[in-house]
Amino acid sequence: MEHKNYDFGLVGLGVMGRNFILNVADNGFKAFGYDLDQEKVDALKKEGGDLNKVDASTEIETFVEALAAPRKIMLLVPAGKIVDQVIETLLPHLDQGDIIIDGGNSFFTDTDRREAYLKEKGINFFGAGVSGGAEGARKGPSIMPGGNAEAYTHIKPIFEAVSAKFNGEPCVAHLGPKSAGNYVKMVHNGIEYGLMQLTSEIYDLLKKSVGLDNDELHQVYDLWNKGRLQSFLVEITAEIFKQEDDLGDGRLVDMILDKAKQKGTGKWTSQNAMDLGIPVPTIDVAVSMREISALKEERIVADKLYSRPEPKPIDKDKIIAMAEESLYFSFIIAYAQGLHQLADASKEYEYDLDMSVIAKIWRAGCIIRAGLLEDISQAYTADKELPNLLLAPSFVEKVQGTLESVRETVAYAAQSGIPVPGLSSALNYFEAYTSSRLPLNVIQAQRDNFGSHTYERIDRSGIFHTEWGK
Amino acid sequence: MEHKNYDFGLVGLGVMGRNFILNVADNGFKAFGYDLDQEKVDALKKEGGDLNKVDASTEIETFVEALAAPRKIMLLVPAGKIVDQVIETLLPHLDQGDIIIDGGNSFFTDTDRREAYLKEKGINFFGAGVSGGAEGARKGPSIMPGGNAEAYTHIKPIFEAVSAKFNGEPCVAHLGPKSAGNYVKMVHNGIEYGLMQLTSEIYDLLKKSVGLDNDELHQVYDLWNKGRLQSFLVEITAEIFKQEDDLGDGRLVDMILDKAKQKGTGKWTSQNAMDLGIPVPTIDVAVSMREISALKEERIVADKLYSRPEPKPIDKDKIIAMAEESLYFSFIIAYAQGLHQLADASKEYEYDLDMSVIAKIWRAGCIIRAGLLEDISQAYTADKELPNLLLAPSFVEKVQGTLESVRETVAYAAQSGIPVPGLSSALNYFEAYTSSRLPLNVIQAQRDNFGSHTYERIDRSGIFHTEWGK
Repeated sequence: MEHKNYDFGLVGLGVMGRNFILNVADNGFKAFGYDLDQEKVDALKKEGGDLNKVDASTEIETFVEALAAPRKIMLLVPAGKIVDQVIETLLPHLDQGDIIIDGGNSFFTDTDRREAYLKEKGINFFGAGVSGGAEGARKGPSIMPGGNAEAYTHIKPIFEAVSAKFNGEPCVAHLGPKSAGNYVKMVHNGIEYGLMQLTSEIYDLLKKSVGLDNDELHQVYDLWNKGRLQSFLVEITAEIFKQEDDLGDGRLVDMILDKAKQKGTGKWTSQNAMDLGIPVPTIDVAVSMREISALKEERIVADKLYSRPEPKPIDKDKIIAMAEESLYFSFIIAYAQGLHQLADASKEYEYDLDMSVIAKIWRAGCIIRAGLLEDISQAYTADKELPNLLLAPSFVEKVQGTLESVRETVAYAAQSGIPVPGLSSALNYFEAYTSSRLPLNVIQAQRDNFGSHTYERIDRSGIFHTEWGK
Repeated sequence: MEHKNYDFGLVGLGVMGRNFILNVADNGFKAFGYDLDQEKVDALKKEGGDLNKVDASTEIETFVEALAAPRKIMLLVPAGKIVDQVIETLLPHLDQGDIIIDGGNSFFTDTDRREAYLKEKGINFFGAGVSGGAEGARKGPSIMPGGNAEAYTHIKPIFEAVSAKFNGEPCVAHLGPKSAGNYVKMVHNGIEYGLMQLTSEIYDLLKKSVGLDNDELHQVYDLWNKGRLQSFLVEITAEIFKQEDDLGDGRLVDMILDKAKQKGTGKWTSQNAMDLGIPVPTIDVAVSMREISALKEERIVADKLYSRPEPKPIDKDKIIAMAEESLYFSFIIAYAQGLHQLADASKEYEYDLDMSVIAKIWRAGCIIRAGLLEDISQAYTADKELPNLLLAPSFVEKVQGTLESVRETVAYAAQSGIPVPGLSSALNYFEAYTSSRLPLNVIQAQRDNFGSHTYERIDRSGIFHTEWGK
């Protein structure tokens, strides 16, 4: 075999890894895979066809010797200790200037630790979140790399070639130093949790209020996907309603258990937002809802203990129109919260993120891709320091037009006993964020009353304390 | 001076420490204080009167030599590194079997670390959350100690004497090993965040809907405090509306800036609930609202960009009655979420908590004390393994009766553009928790569609995956 002439190495030949490496090869780069599992190695070699374009091995020496300098080695392995183990396996075989790219959903502080550790050894480490699922990896994902800017020039041509394209622009960019890429991917996933919760509860609303069947739900979501709600998640939700059940007579969606799993990135987004002090309640409640869904046995018991009102009668076309406005509004809020968190994290962790670029590389390839992201990108291009999407002039108009419907929808759902936690949280977030005066003066009064925690005043500066009740 | 005959030592003579030590002395125990600040030492000595009952020093040797064996030394210092520093200062002077009690809001994993560290050295370490503010420390707080059960017998007589009493029962109990006490106090504070948010947003609702003035608000909250909403927070909120402004003509509450601060225990509660996978959305949103409140400048800008509807006309007595039902309902939900978290943490961290005892020691002294806690305690006495308060027969009746009003209140607030994030989250939590079927089947379908994450079915066991759209 020829040595040292493969452009790209990939560790971990599961579905994502195999698809990604085939994508690299399709774009004219010679790629070499590594996995301990001989079957996975064989499967890749078979699918790759020409071994001069795609080869693979279970031997670490064969793998590293096959790669051209500086080596560009991407890991697509589960986040956690395995990443550290793979790094230790690779290290003795690497040379100064080689590049390791972690393509998994590693927690950002782990990436910072690894980057610093490998920097000492002369190795460049990138955290590069990859979104788009198995199909995205094969046909073009959105890639969110962070790390040393100079070293990025070596991987840029490959990433730009394999990534998804939006109007010809690649959905990848060097986002910032250290863990910037992992952090952006984490928040991407947090927004994803929000959008998924919202699409699911609007389905529930349409089903419970006017009894839309799966064909009608398909038509509604399909139509929405041709309008301002155009997005990957609305598109696949439309598809989901059409899927026949291979094991029964009806539609598959009705047979799927309503316990939603999670892998942690949504939770991390919420937990870190709280550390930063940035409110992302719609992401928080999406995490909570997955947790409540897991309590299926308790829910079955609880359901029998309480009586629920009949949904209020409502015109079918009217509720469908209200639902569309509500979904559009709450999608905007989910993006607004996530982007707010990113803007703040950028300062806190010195990522120097360009929000406009982030919105651009999310326009295709990734799970939260949506027509809305073009508008979002433009809003941040117009004002790079925009504190919140709700303050962008172009969004004021979009949001204001939906508010009457959103408020009616939340009211309708409340009166009808239908849970809409995501939509409610989005509306309440909006109402609070746009209130120059909130009732938290009472909370400060309470804190000063029982804990002498002091308060500020609206009419003069300074810190005050009162002996309450005296 | 006489050596080694003081029953109790206290480090940190701030307001809380001074009040606590005077409380100990009032109950017939000889107490010795330690602080580096001579002024604080002098202030305590002066206030304590008889030096044979209360003495203090800035000298660590004098302090430790004054204490009878085994020494019982409580720290009332800020959580964090200071606790470790004080421990290191004390250590060289301590003997096997001595007891250190951290009375601050330390993070529970810090307590576990310190407990293990000191155990090796033969010192017993307790994390003992103290609630009740400055007045509670002086007149009787609720105390939540965790640590070695045998060593607790040495501090039990003092803690039972100084704690608040409910019908003669002391509001303190050995809650469990290691950090059990700190954990319970953390969740106590999380519930406190929820209740504070709820009392404040109901005030906002009554003010914006029918324009209640501060005298009327005082009367309403004062009346509520005489009924099933009887609680410390409703009581002081009534008091707050009456407080005159020393620096102006009106009431103080209207001059207090609406930016609420936080010290972290609410955030920790939410973050740790997410680690456990337990939904506490009403606590989460209370944390979010403090964060939104801090964005005052953005809120002022946003307020001008959007138009808000006029509140819908409503009868004054009707909205007051609806508000009472809503506050009662949402208080129950806040306790239910926090207690659910405690029950789960008890298993996860092997605390072996007795939920009935926890509810009992919260009945007096602490910030979340409320008449409701007697009912809660009874519910857990009747069923020690109760998964959620909403499943307790006695609570089904209480909650069911409020639902019509709660749903109407959320609908009214939504239509009127009034934010009620805490109440909405409580209602949506209730609706979801009592739904045997949730729309999360669609989320599992989405996850399987884009990420091959698999799903379960309702009609047969097993793990399934579908090639969607084929």
